[in-house]
Amino acid sequence: MAKVGIVMGSDSDMPVMAKAADILEQFGIDYEMTIISAHREPDIFFDWARAAESKGLKVIIAGAGKAAHLPGMCAAIFPLPVIGIPMKTSDLGGVDSLYSIVQMPSGIPVATVAINGGANAGILAAKILAASDDELLARLKKYSESLKSDVVKKAERLDELGFRKYLSQMR
Amino acid sequence: MAKVGIVMGSDSDMPVMAKAADILEQFGIDYEMTIISAHREPDIFFDWARAAESKGLKVIIAGAGKAAHLPGMCAAIFPLPVIGIPMKTSDLGGVDSLYSIVQMPSGIPVATVAINGGANAGILAAKILAASDDELLARLKKYSESLKSDVVKKAERLDELGFRKYLSQMR
Amino acid sequence: MAKVGIVMGSDSDMPVMAKAADILEQFGIDYEMTIISAHREPDIFFDWARAAESKGLKVIIAGAGKAAHLPGMCAAIFPLPVIGIPMKTSDLGGVDSLYSIVQMPSGIPVATVAINGGANAGILAAKILAASDDELLARLKKYSESLKSDVVKKAERLDELGFRKYLSQMR
Amino acid sequence: MAKVGIVMGSDSDMPVMAKAADILEQFGIDYEMTIISAHREPDIFFDWARAAESKGLKVIIAGAGKAAHLPGMCAAIFPLPVIGIPMKTSDLGGVDSLYSIVQMPSGIPVATVAINGGANAGILAAKILAASDDELLARLKKYSESLKSDVVKKAERLDELGFRKYLSQMR
Amino acid sequence: MAKVGIVMGSDSDMPVMAKAADILEQFGIDYEMTIISAHREPDIFFDWARAAESKGLKVIIAGAGKAAHLPGMCAAIFPLPVIGIPMKTSDLGGVDSLYSIVQMPSGIPVATVAINGGANAGILAAKILAASDDELLARLKKYSESLKSDVVKKAERLDELGFRKYLSQMR
Amino acid sequence: MAKVGIVMGSDSDMPVMAKAADILEQFGIDYEMTIISAHREPDIFFDWARAAESKGLKVIIAGAGKAAHLPGMCAAIFPLPVIGIPMKTSDLGGVDSLYSIVQMPSGIPVATVAINGGANAGILAAKILAASDDELLARLKKYSESLKSDVVKKAERLDELGFRKYLSQMR
Amino acid sequence: MAKVGIVMGSDSDMPVMAKAADILEQFGIDYEMTIISAHREPDIFFDWARAAESKGLKVIIAGAGKAAHLPGMCAAIFPLPVIGIPMKTSDLGGVDSLYSIVQMPSGIPVATVAINGGANAGILAAKILAASDDELLARLKKYSESLKSDVVKKAERLDELGFRKYLSQMR
Amino acid sequence: MAKVGIVMGSDSDMPVMAKAADILEQFGIDYEMTIISAHREPDIFFDWARAAESKGLKVIIAGAGKAAHLPGMCAAIFPLPVIGIPMKTSDLGGVDSLYSIVQMPSGIPVATVAINGGANAGILAAKILAASDDELLARLKKYSESLKSDVVKKAERLDELGFRKYLSQMR
Repeated sequence: MAKVGIVMGSDSDMPVMAKAADILEQFGIDYEMTIISAHREPDIFFDWARAAESKGLKVIIAGAGKAAHLPGMCAAIFPLPVIGIPMKTSDLGGVDSLYSIVQMPSGIPVATVAINGGANAGILAAKILAASDDELLARLKKYSESLKSDVVKKAERLDELGFRKYLSQMR
Repeated sequence: MAKVGIVMGSDSDMPVMAKAADILEQFGIDYEMTIISAHREPDIFFDWARAAESKGLKVIIAGAGKAAHLPGMCAAIFPLPVIGIPMKTSDLGGVDSLYSIVQMPSGIPVATVAINGGANAGILAAKILAASDDELLARLKKYSESLKSDVVKKAERLDELGFRKYLSQMR
Repeated sequence: MAKVGIVMGSDSDMPVMAKAADILEQFGIDYEMTIISAHREPDIFFDWARAAESKGLKVIIAGAGKAAHLPGMCAAIFPLPVIGIPMKTSDLGGVDSLYSIVQMPSGIPVATVAINGGANAGILAAKILAASDDELLARLKKYSESLKSDVVKKAERLDELGFRKYLSQMR
Repeated sequence: MAKVGIVMGSDSDMPVMAKAADILEQFGIDYEMTIISAHREPDIFFDWARAAESKGLKVIIAGAGKAAHLPGMCAAIFPLPVIGIPMKTSDLGGVDSLYSIVQMPSGIPVATVAINGGANAGILAAKILAASDDELLARLKKYSESLKSDVVKKAERLDELGFRKYLSQMR
Repeated sequence: MAKVGIVMGSDSDMPVMAKAADILEQFGIDYEMTIISAHREPDIFFDWARAAESKGLKVIIAGAGKAAHLPGMCAAIFPLPVIGIPMKTSDLGGVDSLYSIVQMPSGIPVATVAINGGANAGILAAKILAASDDELLARLKKYSESLKSDVVKKAERLDELGFRKYLSQMR
Repeated sequence: MAKVGIVMGSDSDMPVMAKAADILEQFGIDYEMTIISAHREPDIFFDWARAAESKGLKVIIAGAGKAAHLPGMCAAIFPLPVIGIPMKTSDLGGVDSLYSIVQMPSGIPVATVAINGGANAGILAAKILAASDDELLARLKKYSESLKSDVVKKAERLDELGFRKYLSQMR
Repeated sequence: MAKVGIVMGSDSDMPVMAKAADILEQFGIDYEMTIISAHREPDIFFDWARAAESKGLKVIIAGAGKAAHLPGMCAAIFPLPVIGIPMKTSDLGGVDSLYSIVQMPSGIPVATVAINGGANAGILAAKILAASDDELLARLKKYSESLKSDVVKKAERLDELGFRKYLSQMR
Repeated sequence: MAKVGIVMGSDSDMPVMAKAADILEQFGIDYEMTIISAHREPDIFFDWARAAESKGLKVIIAGAGKAAHLPGMCAAIFPLPVIGIPMKTSDLGGVDSLYSIVQMPSGIPVATVAINGGANAGILAAKILAASDDELLARLKKYSESLKSDVVKKAERLDELGFRKYLSQMR
């Protein structure tokens, strides 16, 4: 049974949202993923958001761009944590999405991650579930270790090659 | 029967929204005014927005601040024009409200006026109704004349007094 | 007889303004479209703006970029609704255009849509006319239905394909 | 045993952080609250952050202003959810705090709430815990009901008084 | 005969515009000063701007706030230099005014000075006239000398008093 | 003898500065053009700026990007008008250049034009000289006429072709 | 003999610059302090900046607001480190000062501290001198210890009082 | 023995950091260079930062992007000067990095250079060391001379070729 719902307002958000799904799969967390526009189909959206709790969802990850209402409207209906991902926009760089998601009024928080922060939304969802799941917490710690060892390897490689060679191999 | 619905997300928006109501009264346009939070009472909001057309509303004026979803969610449900007023905010000056209201996705426009532009929202509503109401249009033109003669009088007074006296009388 | 006037300050705005015209054609609304610079030909602009009402225009859609004065100057002369489209700019992303259009002084509103929001300007014009035209309103509702069913289809396709296949077919 | 740790970089953040503590008390959630500067006492900070999990903390709420590193550094060490509150700043309004908290790199999310969003940080912490605590979830729903009925009462009062009386009683 | 026209869109701009007039008086430059709104009385504005050259004006100083069209519209009509003063605004600090004035399209420059830069607008007008008036140029150089000696005196006073006494005498 | 000095801080500004020179040539105005960095060669800069008046320069056009000090430092030394061109920057879009040029302190104005506004700087220089040169003024008016007729022709072409053909021929 | 020169463009910067001087006195570092405007007295400025090295200055701390050229022009002339303090401005909050100081071109760095960061400029100057002065370094470490113990004391007081009492004693 | 430590949070910062290393090599300054993420490996980071002084480092150059904590955390631990380089970001242009680095709280300065200012960070490090190393200072002066003569040569070339030829040879 899905524990995390991933929802996006438009399929143009898919490349970012896919990173959240990838992470959840890595952690073995069941999720469902769909495209629902709070603006273009408000009734479908309402039904989906209202049904989310009874379906067993514990966290919703919502991504949206520009006047990004989807995460905030999820948070208005769904009683458990909603994570918002502001999409980068071609004109304003995503500041519009960020403000529309993070500046929620008192009473209705959205847990906002970085612009285009799909992976971080997935990780945050995992951390929320890990608050009551020690096995998942252990997997999260392992993941952190892998992030760490990636950097360590890069540092070792820089040590070996020197920055000029390192740079030329990056290109 | 009310032709214009004025709705705000919080009563802290009242000083700005009152200017819209004032204008509508000046033009003899029937309106209803209420406080509905799309975030705190989404079901009440939905019912209100869905009922608006059948009640006879032709225009909705919606004001909201910060992650200002109210105007955009009205536009998602109500099929006729929605005018959005971005509230000035104490931290970001209202840029957050402005972006959350004006940057709507394709298909769902909100007619956005200036930050704290309550009077202009009222005037814009009147202009929309005047597109099919010549008498109202005549009143709008008269109003424009009065704006004009106010400036003319100020210019004459400046001419008479000189800027130093004018300034000292402003204080 | 044209009910909507579409005017732009420069032909570089054409790709955005064309979307407004496209929408009006879809809704069967007569429009006229022209290029007039309030800065480069203020007298031609004045004559055009002053004649607009007597020609029968009910709404003007004006697009402009940078220090975008065209929509505001239309609103200073034409007594019915003016819709402003802020053009994206290569240096400031369109914030300059947005501020120049939306921050109008009390008395002279411009109904501002999103940066590069050509389609939304067309839809907003249609909504304004629909306030007194039930048939047009019916067409607008149908259009909304089509937006909705587009999203529904995408959601179904995502359900069928899964996000990895969906993504690979987007590229 | 405390389940939520509230930490701030400076006691000037106390008025905002107090709102988070207030909320947690309302929900009957045990918390600890302290002042630790990641910049002025990095070793104390490290020890605190590293000990947090073993002490039983499930969520950390961290508030900071300007180059606000505290939430992000908590997230670098504590494996469970970290909620960040960007403080309003006197010069930049809090955009500096917001960017420093929300724009975290991939792998290390901070669940960011609005500028000065102390209450929302508390509510988000409660929602995270409620993902595995049905009783708390019930209290959260009750709280949402109270937010809703507050708005309903205001709307009724506006209906009774009219906006002019309502406004004059607000002052 | 007036050589400089000072025009503002609203008498709320008077405190800033007065500084420009003060400077012109100091330099013995004839000027006229008036209040004309390009938005509220476009026909009066047009007549004034078109008559400016034949009246003998060599420079126009125009101040305006928010969607500040006055300087740009002067520049569209008056063939000689137009100096624009962006007014500080209570919500956006004057960035809106600045962008609306400085970001003029190719062909129609406005010589923009700092936000609320009334004195600098006056000085710039004097410099423009001084390009063909050696006596005025001499007065400008004298003025520069006085600015310089003011700073020199302050530096000497700081030297004498030390910064603590200097500071305490500033309060 | 050169009446206008064009100076840029780096040859990367040349494509923008060239537009100013082009305009001056069109108007038959003698100019000199050079590259001088106020930061990399302050003594050469000082000598150049101090000599400018005695060489007969009446206006300086200075372009610079990022922490753009060149125009302001010219204005600190040269007693006649200085026109500043803020260069577009790859990271901040030119807002940094704009603020560094336009926000000059009282006493030392820089006549600032739009970001990358090379042509407008040239035209503004011509307008400044035209304040005492009727023949040049006549040429400026002719230039304005040509700008106007360009737009008129485009409008006629749009009329003939319709927007779809017009658009396809633009590509 | 003074090792640090503190220079500000206007005596309105004194309250911020005084904090730098205070810090230097705490660390027993000789300094000189003066007011010099690069814009109002460029020749005095040049002489001062050129003489700075031979007078024995090892670091310059320069504060300025708006189009803040003073730090960058110091760095163009003085071959040793220049620390820049961007002043908060009443309209733009100090973003203008910050960009004008930090965005220096390649070759001419200014070590920029926070907006109104007077104390930090003093500390940074001390750290620069401490790179070759072990006794000063020891004093810097002691200072850091005192910052740390201040926070520790506050945390203890919060522990004793609880946040409600702590808050009420802050007011 | 290395006197300067160059550290970056991610190898994507390498192209910018390499410029700092290049400069240090030009000046014959020993440095070490590594990749350490304060977020992904906080313990490794802490050990590195704490060991830096005893290893003999006199200056640290730290580059980071987005919520750029690395420079500030270095400054929290290392008692000597830390130079921060804000990385350009694809969405916000680097304003996020800049604010996260420059807006440090009182007591913990970071000497911030321009966005992507790798070379300037290297030069600033050299200037800091030159405060007690006359030979290095001499090399810095020579470097400044070379910057100067580069500009002089470009100015001469422009003089010879004229701007049109110069431009065409740039492409």
